[in-house]
Amino acid sequence: MGLGIAAVEAAAERIRPWVHRTPVLTSASLDEVVGTTLYFKCENLQKTGAFKARGAVNAVAQSDADVVVTHSSGNHGAALAYAAQTLGKRAIVVVPEDASPIKVANITRYGAQIVRSGPTLESREAVLGEVLAGSGGDVVPPYDDACVVLGQGTAALEFMRDVGHLDSLWLPVGGGGLAAGAVVAVGDAVRVVGAEPALAGDAAAGLAAGVRQPQMPPHTVADGLRTSLGALNFEVLHGYGLHVELVDEDEIIEAQQLMMSCLKVLVEPSSAVAFAALRKARPSGDVGMIVTGGNVAV
Amino acid sequence: MGLGIAAVEAAAERIRPWVHRTPVLTSASLDEVVGTTLYFKCENLQKTGAFKARGAVNAVAQSDADVVVTHSSGNHGAALAYAAQTLGKRAIVVVPEDASPIKVANITRYGAQIVRSGPTLESREAVLGEVLAGSGGDVVPPYDDACVVLGQGTAALEFMRDVGHLDSLWLPVGGGGLAAGAVVAVGDAVRVVGAEPALAGDAAAGLAAGVRQPQMPPHTVADGLRTSLGALNFEVLHGYGLHVELVDEDEIIEAQQLMMSCLKVLVEPSSAVAFAALRKARPSGDVGMIVTGGNVAV
Repeated sequence: MGLGIAAVEAAAERIRPWVHRTPVLTSASLDEVVGTTLYFKCENLQKTGAFKARGAVNAVAQSDADVVVTHSSGNHGAALAYAAQTLGKRAIVVVPEDASPIKVANITRYGAQIVRSGPTLESREAVLGEVLAGSGGDVVPPYDDACVVLGQGTAALEFMRDVGHLDSLWLPVGGGGLAAGAVVAVGDAVRVVGAEPALAGDAAAGLAAGVRQPQMPPHTVADGLRTSLGALNFEVLHGYGLHVELVDEDEIIEAQQLMMSCLKVLVEPSSAVAFAALRKARPSGDVGMIVTGGNVAV
Repeated sequence: MGLGIAAVEAAAERIRPWVHRTPVLTSASLDEVVGTTLYFKCENLQKTGAFKARGAVNAVAQSDADVVVTHSSGNHGAALAYAAQTLGKRAIVVVPEDASPIKVANITRYGAQIVRSGPTLESREAVLGEVLAGSGGDVVPPYDDACVVLGQGTAALEFMRDVGHLDSLWLPVGGGGLAAGAVVAVGDAVRVVGAEPALAGDAAAGLAAGVRQPQMPPHTVADGLRTSLGALNFEVLHGYGLHVELVDEDEIIEAQQLMMSCLKVLVEPSSAVAFAALRKARPSGDVGMIVTGGNVAV
């Protein structure tokens, strides 16, 4: 499938009945913090509490299999479970034994079957292979997949249509599905900028060097951003010349507190990474950011 | 000023530049909890984090004085401070010495002057009298005032216009400004229902008896609902025959957790009172509720 604006528009049409058109919030207090006009696209208010529902629904809607399978310790697992339940299929999610209970609960609430693996990527992939052999299902990868990327791109497309104009669009970068989707959807009209925890800065390093980097030890509080940039997404983002800002852990925590107290919405640390970058970089003009998820304990 | 739909429409027009048109959220998970289709009007995402900004802006915009004055330990104080700052006036807020630091900080962030009083209503009113005598300002009461009621009514008006149809509209009742405003704005088109903590059930008791009741000892966790129904609001709500559901403290806390975890927005205990009532009453049809505020510590 070609990665182009028409494909993003087709994805938006395809997923519309099953995802929220999330609101765009503004805050005079946060404008003052950054010194410009900010728009927040609230994908934390999306189905399953994260933008991941978009990519998962777009992928599952195009699968002929009755069973869809993935490995995930986080929001993609819940998104796939939701997509399968909504579209009348069965989902199996391989979950590492050290996954957080709140994320696991968010997967099981949508009726997915959980299969446990060890914590390493090798163990996760080995167990996924067994599940696939046993179920005959389709794999829906968390980010490195054209259907998933196009689905995530619908968030940026909606954002631009609802706001009308943006000078820059900021978003956190983990596996790169959201960033690649945004570049495909709106990268010609607006400058897309990435943000990443310094403790998981593989995208910044790899895009600067022109060579995809393996992930560093994933110690960041931003658990959604511990993955490495996917190969497909690396190609898209390197071709675009994506700039990625790095932020420290205390900047992430501070940004999360500020966003929650001013916007009055739940914000995952991974979402706060983009706002932490905005506080440091202080860009001018009309600035958008995607609030990617809200799955924190309350 | 007459309390009618035209006056609410005029108020909506008057305050539009200074308040958010807040989003309406839905949640399949919460629909399942109550067993019907729910719509949540998110006034917790309003300026100052509560619907109170509507009434305060409507009142201050119509005041000729350079100084506006009130007593408040909560969201009305911040709303008046915001309205004054926005409209180029000075605000003085009498705050009881036992007010929560987070609410006081929310008043001072909008530049209001704080004057401390004792914790009793008598002390608050005595200090307010002194402030008034010294400043020559206009009083903007927290709820028992036509301008304030009409401003609060704009929330229900917007809600009905954005959703198109509701069978019932649920909201918490404290001083009754929001409820009276809703009855005036949309009470002919939709059944307005109130909700109140059993520990602060003066509205339910007073409306059933036909005689306004003094407040009981205000021990409820829902600090926004500890006030008694205002005299003007009692007239409006008694004339309408408002039904008020009572809920227990543990039901309020549970409802607050459920709303936050499913809607991904911050919810004050006072806001959760209406959802707690919905869980018990299980109304059918298209059901709206107003999420009144989100000022909780994060």
